[in-house]
Amino acid sequence: MPTIVVDVMPKAELLDPQGKAVTGSLARLGHGQFQNVRIGKRVEMTVEGEVTDEVLAEAKKVAEEILSNQVIEDVISIEVV
Amino acid sequence: MPTIVVDVMPKAELLDPQGKAVTGSLARLGHGQFQNVRIGKRVEMTVEGEVTDEVLAEAKKVAEEILSNQVIEDVISIEVV
Repeated sequence: MPTIVVDVMPKAELLDPQGKAVTGSLARLGHGQFQNVRIGKRVEMTVEGEVTDEVLAEAKKVAEEILSNQVIEDVISIEVV
Repeated sequence: MPTIVVDVMPKAELLDPQGKAVTGSLARLGHGQFQNVRIGKRVEMTVEGEVTDEVLAEAKKVAEEILSNQVIEDVISIEVV
C-alpha cells in the first residue's frame, strides 16, 4: 500500500517555545552552531489502492482539517513515498 | 543560513497510540481509506556557515542523541533544504 507523508510545521510568525527550549539545550551542550530550532509533525498514513488526484485532494483536505490546526500550523508538504 | 531538516518517527515495531487514535478519527469522519497513521517529529534548524561533512556528521549526532529517543524512535532522514 502506498504511503502518504504529511509535514506540518508551526506558523513561522508564531513563537515556538519547544523549539526555543531545544535551541537553548543545543547551545549548552556545545552544539551552538545549530539555531532557530522549530519542531513540527511528520504524519505517515497508508492508503488503499492507487493514489489518484482525487485521493491526493482528499489527503490535502484531511491534512488541513484534521492533521493540523490551521490557526497555528501550516501544512508544508504532502507527498507519496 | 542553510536549514537542516531532521525527520524522526516512532520505531515501526512500537505501538503508536496517537497514530491509532487519529486513524480511528479518520474512519469515523469518512476518510477510512487512510489507515495506519503514524505521527513523528519534523525538526528544522538553521546552521551558521557552510554545511560541510563535519557539520552533517554533528547534525546526525545531535539528531540521535538530543532530538530523538533512540529507545522508541528512529531518525529516518537528515537533509539540507
